[in-house]
Amino acid sequence: MRKEKGLLIVLSGPAGVGKGTVCGALRNENTEIQYSVSATTREPRAGEVDGVNYFFKSREEFESMIENNQLLEHAEYVGNYYGTPIDYVKQTIEEGTDIILEIEVQGALKVRERFPEGVFIFLMPPSLAELRKRIQGRGTETAEIIDRRMTVAKEEIDMMKKYDYVVENDEVALAVERIKAIVTAEHCKRERLIEKYKQLVEVE
Amino acid sequence: MRKEKGLLIVLSGPAGVGKGTVCGALRNENTEIQYSVSATTREPRAGEVDGVNYFFKSREEFESMIENNQLLEHAEYVGNYYGTPIDYVKQTIEEGTDIILEIEVQGALKVRERFPEGVFIFLMPPSLAELRKRIQGRGTETAEIIDRRMTVAKEEIDMMKKYDYVVENDEVALAVERIKAIVTAEHCKRERLIEKYKQLVEVE
Repeated sequence: MRKEKGLLIVLSGPAGVGKGTVCGALRNENTEIQYSVSATTREPRAGEVDGVNYFFKSREEFESMIENNQLLEHAEYVGNYYGTPIDYVKQTIEEGTDIILEIEVQGALKVRERFPEGVFIFLMPPSLAELRKRIQGRGTETAEIIDRRMTVAKEEIDMMKKYDYVVENDEVALAVERIKAIVTAEHCKRERLIEKYKQLVEVE
Repeated sequence: MRKEKGLLIVLSGPAGVGKGTVCGALRNENTEIQYSVSATTREPRAGEVDGVNYFFKSREEFESMIENNQLLEHAEYVGNYYGTPIDYVKQTIEEGTDIILEIEVQGALKVRERFPEGVFIFLMPPSLAELRKRIQGRGTETAEIIDRRMTVAKEEIDMMKKYDYVVENDEVALAVERIKAIVTAEHCKRERLIEKYKQLVEVE
């Protein structure tokens, strides 16, 4: 029987909603989902391993990846490039392994253009008041910056319409359960399985 | 915040695949899913309660339900009518409760016509050899009848293309987990939630 392909799962949502925490908790559960490794031009920190934490690239290498369309998306942040190598994602999926990508909203929408068959999950704060609290909770920002972030967050929430699923991050454990359920359900989707079962009917 | 509607979940699949067993196991888990109560013209058996096991109807009452379009589907079996009252399903959903309907393939497709927003799950045997074993396992049928049933089963498997999900019934516990995951995922679907969250953005 033909082996089923893996899924590209894209977890996104407004800054402050807790994408990193939820993704980390999912990782700790030791599910069979692989985590996407980004390429970056920033220097490796102590203990970071090339190909595990990041693919470390020179600026020239990274720019040639951009030119050759080898990145699903990329962005520049504090003078360094970050991006998702398309080959790594495709290879993982072809092997039949699911891969998850944790990414901000604009980047996710770029991924959708290149990879419409991905499963796009939007992580939602339980309320805007709660999101404000989480952004404030970091304690490092001025009121003005917090207001600006809230405006951006509202615009990002409006982008939810381009996603397949919305997961509320009321509790990390609940959000993780919902994401796992979505992955299981997506594997049961008829359009992903019909070829496999056609064979079953023809073979007997 | 507006209350979300419940889901109509339709569990179907070829005869012998184990719909009843899987549905019973799901029921034993005490999930919040309600079970659809069928209307029938057959006599109540000892201990059966009207409105719980079945809605017991006279032949005249049942035929008037058919005429008045009050059934999602119906069939005649060994001289008695069986059918799904549409009002019961609609009311449960409006209350925000999920309702599951366990039904054979032809009936499920009729339900789809009336209720396209339902979640249609096709229960699959792990293989046709296994399905044959299960049908034989009842030990009550001749070889000819078993062959005829297998032909019907293959035709029914071909109907899988009209369903949203395919769940393999390799182990009852696994099939139940997959169905629960599908229900959770369906509640996270963006198109079911977007109205709720639009309010959230507008309200602050």
